[in-house]
Amino acid sequence: MKQTFKPYYAVIFTSTQNENIEGYSEMANKIEHLAKQQKGFLEMDSARNEVGITVSYWETIEDIKLWKQQSEHLEAQQKGRVDWYSWYNVRICKVEREYEFLKNEL
Amino acid sequence: MKQTFKPYYAVIFTSTQNENIEGYSEMANKIEHLAKQQKGFLEMDSARNEVGITVSYWETIEDIKLWKQQSEHLEAQQKGRVDWYSWYNVRICKVEREYEFLKNEL
Repeated sequence: MKQTFKPYYAVIFTSTQNENIEGYSEMANKIEHLAKQQKGFLEMDSARNEVGITVSYWETIEDIKLWKQQSEHLEAQQKGRVDWYSWYNVRICKVEREYEFLKNEL
Repeated sequence: MKQTFKPYYAVIFTSTQNENIEGYSEMANKIEHLAKQQKGFLEMDSARNEVGITVSYWETIEDIKLWKQQSEHLEAQQKGRVDWYSWYNVRICKVEREYEFLKNEL
Protein backbone atom coordinates (compact mmCIF):
# COMPACT_ATOMS: atom_id res chain seq x y z
CA MET A 1 0.00 0.00 0.00
CA LYS A 2 1.41 3.34 -1.05
CA GLN A 3 1.46 6.00 1.66
CA THR A 4 -0.19 8.30 -0.82
CA PHE A 5 -3.08 5.94 -1.53
CA LYS A 6 -6.31 7.88 -1.87
CA PRO A 7 -9.44 5.82 -1.14
CA TYR A 8 -12.07 5.63 -3.83
CA TYR A 9 -15.29 3.66 -4.27
CA ALA A 10 -16.42 0.48 -5.97
CA VAL A 11 -19.90 -0.72 -6.92
CA ILE A 12 -19.97 -4.51 -7.09
CA PHE A 13 -22.98 -5.59 -9.14
CA THR A 14 -23.54 -9.37 -9.09
CA SER A 15 -26.44 -10.87 -11.04
CA THR A 16 -28.13 -13.86 -12.62
CA GLN A 17 -30.16 -13.42 -15.78
CA ASN A 18 -33.37 -14.81 -17.21
CA GLU A 19 -33.21 -17.09 -20.26
CA ASN A 20 -34.62 -14.47 -22.60
CA ILE A 21 -32.51 -11.31 -22.41
CA GLU A 22 -33.58 -9.64 -25.62
CA GLY A 23 -32.32 -6.08 -25.80
CA TYR A 24 -29.91 -6.56 -22.90
CA SER A 25 -26.66 -6.35 -24.79
CA GLU A 26 -27.56 -3.08 -26.59
CA MET A 27 -28.61 -1.55 -23.26
CA ALA A 28 -25.46 -2.78 -21.50
CA ASN A 29 -23.30 -1.12 -24.16
CA LYS A 30 -25.29 2.10 -23.96
CA ILE A 31 -25.09 2.22 -20.16
CA GLU A 32 -21.36 1.49 -20.13
CA HIS A 33 -20.84 4.32 -22.61
CA LEU A 34 -22.89 6.69 -20.44
CA ALA A 35 -21.14 5.64 -17.21
CA LYS A 36 -17.78 6.47 -18.75
CA GLN A 37 -18.96 10.03 -19.42
CA GLN A 38 -20.33 10.44 -15.90
CA LYS A 39 -18.62 12.67 -13.31
CA GLY A 40 -16.23 10.74 -11.06
CA PHE A 41 -16.13 7.57 -13.16
CA LEU A 42 -12.77 5.81 -12.97
CA GLU A 43 -12.99 2.31 -14.45
CA MET A 44 -15.25 -0.67 -15.08
CA ASP A 45 -14.72 -4.44 -15.36
CA SER A 46 -17.26 -7.09 -16.35
CA ALA A 47 -17.40 -10.86 -16.75
CA ARG A 48 -20.24 -13.37 -16.87
CA ASN A 49 -20.46 -17.17 -16.59
CA GLU A 50 -23.07 -18.70 -14.23
CA VAL A 51 -23.05 -15.40 -12.42
CA GLY A 52 -22.28 -11.98 -13.84
CA ILE A 53 -20.01 -9.55 -12.03
CA THR A 54 -19.62 -5.91 -12.99
CA VAL A 55 -17.46 -3.69 -10.84
CA SER A 56 -17.37 0.04 -11.49
CA TYR A 57 -15.00 2.40 -9.70
CA TRP A 58 -15.79 5.99 -8.72
CA GLU A 59 -14.01 8.91 -7.07
CA THR A 60 -16.64 9.54 -4.38
CA ILE A 61 -19.82 8.07 -2.96
CA GLU A 62 -21.69 11.16 -4.20
CA ASP A 63 -20.64 10.32 -7.77
CA ILE A 64 -22.22 6.88 -7.29
CA LYS A 65 -25.46 8.42 -6.00
CA LEU A 66 -25.67 10.75 -8.99
CA TRP A 67 -25.03 7.90 -11.41
CA LYS A 68 -27.69 5.75 -9.72
CA GLN A 69 -30.20 8.56 -10.32
CA GLN A 70 -29.15 9.40 -13.90
CA SER A 71 -32.34 9.23 -15.96
CA GLU A 72 -31.29 6.75 -18.65
CA HIS A 73 -29.64 4.61 -16.01
CA LEU A 74 -32.87 4.61 -13.97
CA GLU A 75 -34.72 3.40 -17.05
CA ALA A 76 -32.16 0.62 -17.55
CA GLN A 77 -32.43 -0.44 -13.90
CA GLN A 78 -36.21 -0.65 -14.24
CA LYS A 79 -35.96 -2.67 -17.44
CA GLY A 80 -33.39 -4.92 -15.77
CA ARG A 81 -35.77 -5.78 -12.96
CA VAL A 82 -38.70 -6.41 -15.30
CA ASP A 83 -36.99 -8.16 -18.23
CA TRP A 84 -33.43 -9.39 -17.65
CA TYR A 85 -32.43 -10.19 -14.08
CA SER A 86 -33.72 -13.04 -11.94
CA TRP A 87 -31.54 -11.80 -9.10
CA TYR A 88 -29.02 -9.11 -8.40
CA ASN A 89 -27.01 -7.70 -5.56
CA VAL A 90 -25.39 -4.28 -5.33
CA ARG A 91 -22.61 -3.55 -2.88
CA ILE A 92 -21.14 -0.07 -2.33
CA CYS A 93 -17.56 -0.36 -1.11
CA LYS A 94 -14.70 1.87 -0.09
CA VAL A 95 -11.45 0.73 -1.70
CA GLU A 96 -8.89 0.97 1.10
CA ARG A 97 -5.83 -0.74 -0.39
CA GLU A 98 -4.71 -1.87 -3.78
CA TYR A 99 -1.78 -3.70 -5.31
CA GLU A 100 -0.96 -4.78 -8.80
CA PHE A 101 1.17 -7.39 -10.54
CA LEU A 102 2.38 -7.03 -14.11
CA LYS A 103 4.46 -9.78 -15.63
CA ASN A 104 7.80 -8.77 -17.07
CA GLU A 105 7.98 -10.52 -20.41
CA LEU A 106 11.50 -11.71 -21.18
CA MET B 1 -29.71 0.24 3.56
CA LYS B 2 -30.77 -1.46 6.74
CA GLN B 3 -30.02 0.45 9.93
CA THR B 4 -28.53 -2.75 11.29
CA PHE B 5 -26.10 -3.18 8.40
CA LYS B 6 -22.74 -4.42 9.67
CA PRO B 7 -19.82 -3.58 7.39
CA TYR B 8 -17.67 -6.42 6.13
CA TYR B 9 -14.83 -6.68 3.62
CA ALA B 10 -14.38 -7.60 -0.01
CA VAL B 11 -11.27 -8.62 -1.95
CA ILE B 12 -11.69 -7.79 -5.62
CA PHE B 13 -9.20 -9.82 -7.64
CA THR B 14 -9.09 -8.85 -11.33
CA SER B 15 -6.75 -10.68 -13.70
CA THR B 16 -5.71 -11.60 -17.20
CA GLN B 17 -4.15 -15.00 -17.87
CA ASN B 18 -1.40 -16.38 -20.07
CA GLU B 19 -2.30 -18.66 -22.97
CA ASN B 20 -1.00 -21.79 -21.26
CA ILE B 21 -2.65 -22.18 -17.87
CA GLU B 22 -1.89 -25.83 -17.22
CA GLY B 23 -2.73 -26.79 -13.65
CA TYR B 24 -4.70 -23.60 -13.03
CA SER B 25 -8.16 -25.07 -12.78
CA GLU B 26 -7.15 -27.74 -10.23
CA MET B 27 -5.42 -25.12 -8.12
CA ALA B 28 -8.39 -22.72 -8.37
CA ASN B 29 -10.71 -25.45 -7.10
CA LYS B 30 -8.36 -26.34 -4.26
CA ILE B 31 -7.93 -22.72 -3.21
CA GLU B 32 -11.68 -22.05 -3.31
CA HIS B 33 -12.23 -25.10 -1.11
CA LEU B 34 -9.58 -23.91 1.36
CA ALA B 35 -10.91 -20.34 1.43
CA LYS B 36 -14.36 -21.60 2.37
CA GLN B 37 -12.89 -23.32 5.43
CA GLN B 38 -10.94 -20.24 6.46
CA LYS B 39 -11.94 -18.14 9.50
CA GLY B 40 -14.15 -15.20 8.59
CA PHE B 41 -14.95 -16.36 5.05
CA LEU B 42 -18.42 -15.29 3.94
CA GLU B 43 -18.87 -15.79 0.20
CA MET B 44 -17.11 -15.87 -3.16
CA ASP B 45 -18.13 -15.09 -6.76
CA SER B 46 -16.12 -15.63 -9.93
CA ALA B 47 -16.51 -15.04 -13.65
CA ARG B 48 -14.04 -14.84 -16.52
CA ASN B 49 -14.23 -13.59 -20.12
CA GLU B 50 -11.51 -11.25 -21.44
CA VAL B 51 -10.84 -10.38 -17.83
CA GLY B 52 -11.38 -12.55 -14.77
CA ILE B 53 -13.04 -11.18 -11.66
CA THR B 54 -13.13 -13.02 -8.35
CA VAL B 55 -14.63 -11.28 -5.35
CA SER B 56 -14.36 -12.89 -1.93
CA TYR B 57 -16.13 -11.52 1.14
CA TRP B 58 -14.77 -11.63 4.68
CA GLU B 59 -15.89 -10.61 8.16
CA THR B 60 -12.82 -8.52 9.01
CA ILE B 61 -9.64 -7.18 7.46
CA GLU B 62 -7.64 -9.43 9.82
CA ASP B 63 -9.35 -12.48 8.29
CA ILE B 64 -8.14 -11.29 4.87
CA LYS B 65 -4.57 -10.87 6.16
CA LEU B 66 -4.56 -14.37 7.62
CA TRP B 67 -5.92 -15.85 4.40
CA LYS B 68 -3.30 -13.98 2.34
CA GLN B 69 -0.60 -15.62 4.49
CA GLN B 70 -2.07 -19.13 4.57
CA SER B 71 0.71 -21.46 3.39
CA GLU B 72 -1.06 -23.24 0.52
CA HIS B 73 -2.52 -19.94 -0.62
CA LEU B 74 0.98 -18.38 -0.62
CA GLU B 75 2.15 -21.23 -2.82
CA ALA B 76 -0.78 -20.66 -5.20
CA GLN B 77 -0.06 -16.92 -5.36
CA GLN B 78 3.57 -17.66 -6.24
CA LYS B 79 2.57 -20.16 -8.92
CA GLY B 80 0.03 -17.65 -10.24
CA ARG B 81 2.71 -15.02 -10.75
CA VAL B 82 5.13 -17.44 -12.40
CA ASP B 83 2.77 -19.55 -14.52
CA TRP B 84 -0.76 -18.25 -14.99
CA TYR B 85 -1.28 -14.51 -14.73
CA SER B 86 0.00 -11.88 -17.13
CA TRP B 87 -1.54 -9.20 -14.90
CA TYR B 88 -3.59 -8.93 -11.76
CA ASN B 89 -4.92 -6.34 -9.41
CA VAL B 90 -6.07 -6.83 -5.83
CA ARG B 91 -8.31 -4.34 -4.07
CA ILE B 92 -9.23 -4.57 -0.40
CA CYS B 93 -12.58 -2.89 0.20
CA LYS B 94 -14.96 -2.16 3.03
CA VAL B 95 -18.55 -2.99 2.05
CA GLU B 96 -20.57 -0.07 3.39
CA ARG B 97 -24.01 -0.66 1.87
CA GLU B 98 -25.79 -3.47 0.13
CA TYR B 99 -29.12 -4.11 -1.54
CA GLU B 100 -30.61 -7.06 -3.29
CA PHE B 101 -33.30 -7.77 -5.88
CA LEU B 102 -35.00 -11.14 -6.20
CA LYS B 103 -37.63 -11.62 -8.88
CA ASN B 104 -41.02 -12.83 -7.73
CA GLU B 105 -41.89 -15.56 -10.20
CA LEU B 106 -45.59 -15.58 -11.04
